[in-house]
Amino acid sequence: MRVMGVDPGLTRCGLSVVEGGTGRQVIALDVDVVRTPSDAPLAERLLTISNTVDHWMDTHVPDVVAIERVFANQNANTAMGTAQAGGVIALAAARRSIDVHFHTPSEVKAAVTGNGRADKAQVTAMVTRILALQTKPTPADAADALALAICHCWRAPMIARMAAAEAQAAEQQRRYRATLKAKAKAKKGSSPAPSRSAT
Amino acid sequence: MRVMGVDPGLTRCGLSVVEGGTGRQVIALDVDVVRTPSDAPLAERLLTISNTVDHWMDTHVPDVVAIERVFANQNANTAMGTAQAGGVIALAAARRSIDVHFHTPSEVKAAVTGNGRADKAQVTAMVTRILALQTKPTPADAADALALAICHCWRAPMIARMAAAEAQAAEQQRRYRATLKAKAKAKKGSSPAPSRSAT
Repeated sequence: MRVMGVDPGLTRCGLSVVEGGTGRQVIALDVDVVRTPSDAPLAERLLTISNTVDHWMDTHVPDVVAIERVFANQNANTAMGTAQAGGVIALAAARRSIDVHFHTPSEVKAAVTGNGRADKAQVTAMVTRILALQTKPTPADAADALALAICHCWRAPMIARMAAAEAQAAEQQRRYRATLKAKAKAKKGSSPAPSRSAT
Repeated sequence: MRVMGVDPGLTRCGLSVVEGGTGRQVIALDVDVVRTPSDAPLAERLLTISNTVDHWMDTHVPDVVAIERVFANQNANTAMGTAQAGGVIALAAARRSIDVHFHTPSEVKAAVTGNGRADKAQVTAMVTRILALQTKPTPADAADALALAICHCWRAPMIARMAAAEAQAAEQQRRYRATLKAKAKAKKGSSPAPSRSAT
């Protein structure tokens, strides 16, 4: 499974592509950071990010895109720009019918380091070790993008099981409702003494 | 000037197109609300909005797109979705080299009703009157999208003057710096007693 990991942002947007193998095996294929000048108009910055992401998706053809889920309670002003960048990237994936999954920062940290409150240095160190990289990926946005992709590779089986369980529960509920409906109909049908064929 | 007004949102996204004439004359050309189901994946919702906006831009060919500026301090969860929708719309405009301007809710209210704290009913009533509509535009998102477009039409000359003033100030600063640089160079050049041509 080829996963594209994205740490969204307007000033620095981390992009990575990894190939998930059997078990915990993950191979890094590419990693980079897109930068846009903070004094450029918002629409232009989003266009730069979108064009770069389009190019990455066309080049690497990922099966799934994992994006960091942003919360507004962090830095309000930055969060809006981060959300806009994330939206543009999710759109690029949707245009190609590529699945999009969002992971929270603590899910990513927990998956990669075993600690949901790990700091940036710990995340970078574990990413470097997991992917057996010669040098630490920099800046932190590059390491985060790789961590996101690794997180998705490892959580994917669990996400699939959860989706299957949810689908099964929905199917059971649908069947149960259909049974109830049929019973109610049968009851309604028998009560007004319908015409019976003579025996 | 043809202005497309956008009240961004995932569940309901208000879209409008107006034609601004001389003075305060504004004519409504189109207004609608795009809805996306709240249980659909985010990427799909953004794709629906993006496709609709693409169609509108191709049909109406606006000169400028006016989008409501979102603040994170409102409803944190809704604000993120609103920012993502706004980002996707700004991107669609940037792809066509259409200018994008953001106006805050209070700027819009002040422009349309004269009161930056006007309520939804007042905004709808004024939009209906300004555009001489037969019926009130509903839902509120449609009225807001029209109000945004009207706001931009009326603020455009002021925005243009401000941009011109800023450009002028930047040019003056550039010239002043160039003068200082030239003086410093001349000083530096004269002190080490350069060779002079004999008179």
